[in-house]
Amino acid sequence: MIIDVHGHYTTTPREHQDFRDALLARLADPSAPVPFPASISDDQIRESIEHNQLKILRERGADFMLFSPKASGMEHHVPDRDVAVHWARTCNDLVHRVTELFPDSFAPVAQLPQTPDGSLGRVVKEIRRVVTELGFVGVNLNPDPSGTWSGVPMTDPYWFPVYEALEELEVPAMVHVSTACNLNFHTLGAHYLNADTSVFVQLLGSDLFERFPGLRFVIPHGGGAVPYHWGRFRGLAMRYGWQDPAKLLDNVFFDTAVYHQPGIDLLTRVIPAENILFASEMLGAVRGADPETGLEWDDTLSYVEASGLSGPDLRQVYEANARRVYPRLDQRLTAMGR
Amino acid sequence: MIIDVHGHYTTTPREHQDFRDALLARLADPSAPVPFPASISDDQIRESIEHNQLKILRERGADFMLFSPKASGMEHHVPDRDVAVHWARTCNDLVHRVTELFPDSFAPVAQLPQTPDGSLGRVVKEIRRVVTELGFVGVNLNPDPSGTWSGVPMTDPYWFPVYEALEELEVPAMVHVSTACNLNFHTLGAHYLNADTSVFVQLLGSDLFERFPGLRFVIPHGGGAVPYHWGRFRGLAMRYGWQDPAKLLDNVFFDTAVYHQPGIDLLTRVIPAENILFASEMLGAVRGADPETGLEWDDTLSYVEASGLSGPDLRQVYEANARRVYPRLDQRLTAMGR
Repeated sequence: MIIDVHGHYTTTPREHQDFRDALLARLADPSAPVPFPASISDDQIRESIEHNQLKILRERGADFMLFSPKASGMEHHVPDRDVAVHWARTCNDLVHRVTELFPDSFAPVAQLPQTPDGSLGRVVKEIRRVVTELGFVGVNLNPDPSGTWSGVPMTDPYWFPVYEALEELEVPAMVHVSTACNLNFHTLGAHYLNADTSVFVQLLGSDLFERFPGLRFVIPHGGGAVPYHWGRFRGLAMRYGWQDPAKLLDNVFFDTAVYHQPGIDLLTRVIPAENILFASEMLGAVRGADPETGLEWDDTLSYVEASGLSGPDLRQVYEANARRVYPRLDQRLTAMGR
Repeated sequence: MIIDVHGHYTTTPREHQDFRDALLARLADPSAPVPFPASISDDQIRESIEHNQLKILRERGADFMLFSPKASGMEHHVPDRDVAVHWARTCNDLVHRVTELFPDSFAPVAQLPQTPDGSLGRVVKEIRRVVTELGFVGVNLNPDPSGTWSGVPMTDPYWFPVYEALEELEVPAMVHVSTACNLNFHTLGAHYLNADTSVFVQLLGSDLFERFPGLRFVIPHGGGAVPYHWGRFRGLAMRYGWQDPAKLLDNVFFDTAVYHQPGIDLLTRVIPAENILFASEMLGAVRGADPETGLEWDDTLSYVEASGLSGPDLRQVYEANARRVYPRLDQRLTAMGR
């Protein structure tokens, strides 16, 4: 089977964004009405999924998708901690409903109620809620909740309560920023890729995984600039006495959200197959097809198929790695007899 | 001939850094002595070059190098504008001496007296000085003088006085940041690559080169994440109505400072040969050799040789592109009968 570990609910019914707007309106003006999550019917959800992610998943020949709230909509830069909890819970509950309506095709991955400041107690609480009560199999952890990189690196003890919970619950984190709050960084074009690269280098110079050997990070978008500059990182590691980049591969994995054949060919050439997880980021940054090839930009299955990986390697990338990195996904699929 | 467009004077005599330290000491304590540039002899300069950049250049079989001050040492984040001018002039004068002592091997590229704030009048003045009086053929332009990305994108009219001068003088700019002032970004591991990627996306959504058709940017470090994510940028351009990335290639060029074979193979596969300029960044981010291959990390000539580029393409990458993009380099070489 083919598992896509990186899908977003970017097609929510309009009422969901209306709730977000009302949350922000009340932040701006406390005399505004207290907002409540929109009433969204099962039919609305079905329609938003069947004509979009599910349709495309089936057309392309994939079987299953890890599904999380829209990443740019997490907006962790909004400093109000109550709003962060309301918004994350509502997004997660909605994603959970998708996965209950389509259990054969989706498993849920959570948005966390991060804010630029404050302790991570509420974040840990939401992790425990979604994993133990709602069956979530992963989380998206934002290394830059401020949107301006005003916080601390992911190797700072600030983050340890989250890592303790993730390790205990056997839940990996996809390292995924949200909207950039700096005009120099286009959110989808630069900020996402910069974050992927920056976090990898933070990890390279740290002993984080000696402290948390069970912690696993998935770096999306093919690892930002990492595979393209693998030699640079190996050389820097030697110069600075950091661990070799290969050592990180016990705990760090890359997805295949890279939208052309040469990029996927580089990824599969540089990174061992056991560290690559199939993903499309669909519906994500790019929409439509390349006029030169007719291939849809995010039809990463076509690129991976053509990458020249062997059959056993492809099976790892498509299924085995995802089941190993996301143990709760494996349990879920096993319980379904798959 | 083989021209390396990206070399740094990272091996300056110690007295040069002493002057920098004295400049900063006086900023911290105005009662400290007024610093003057160190007295550095020609022999000291010769020694610092002959055993380093020049030796390596010759050993590897390259012929000529564009030589600029150490990039991480530009430190444009220091806000004092007088100090910025003193430091940039001193660095440029020293690089100029290198190129006068070794005119057959080096041509100078300038550090600019940027600061996080203030008009660019002094920057333009230094560009005019080094180009018209000292024969500089290019400049390094820092898209993030603050080191914290607190300034404006390179498409903002703030930068236009610099672009007008560069266009008028026929001098290209290498887009090169200096030290990062944010713990999330390792300077050589993340900040450099992030800047390369971010600036490319800024340009993609702008009409900057319609306004300045003669302006040319060289994006170092193989373009950051750009070639690896070329499909993503093509898809984003289509989604947002930006120009196609290929359109930027009239004005934007990439160097080959990518330190492993798969990275160079990707670069040469994705980016047309007429937009690739040979470079090593030597002595730069990485030092020493890959224990697996025995090749020195920044021996990019070996990677480019093995990339499978045709003879005519290699001649473009090694020489013709550099002479076209840097017209004053071409004049200089032509005057030497080369």
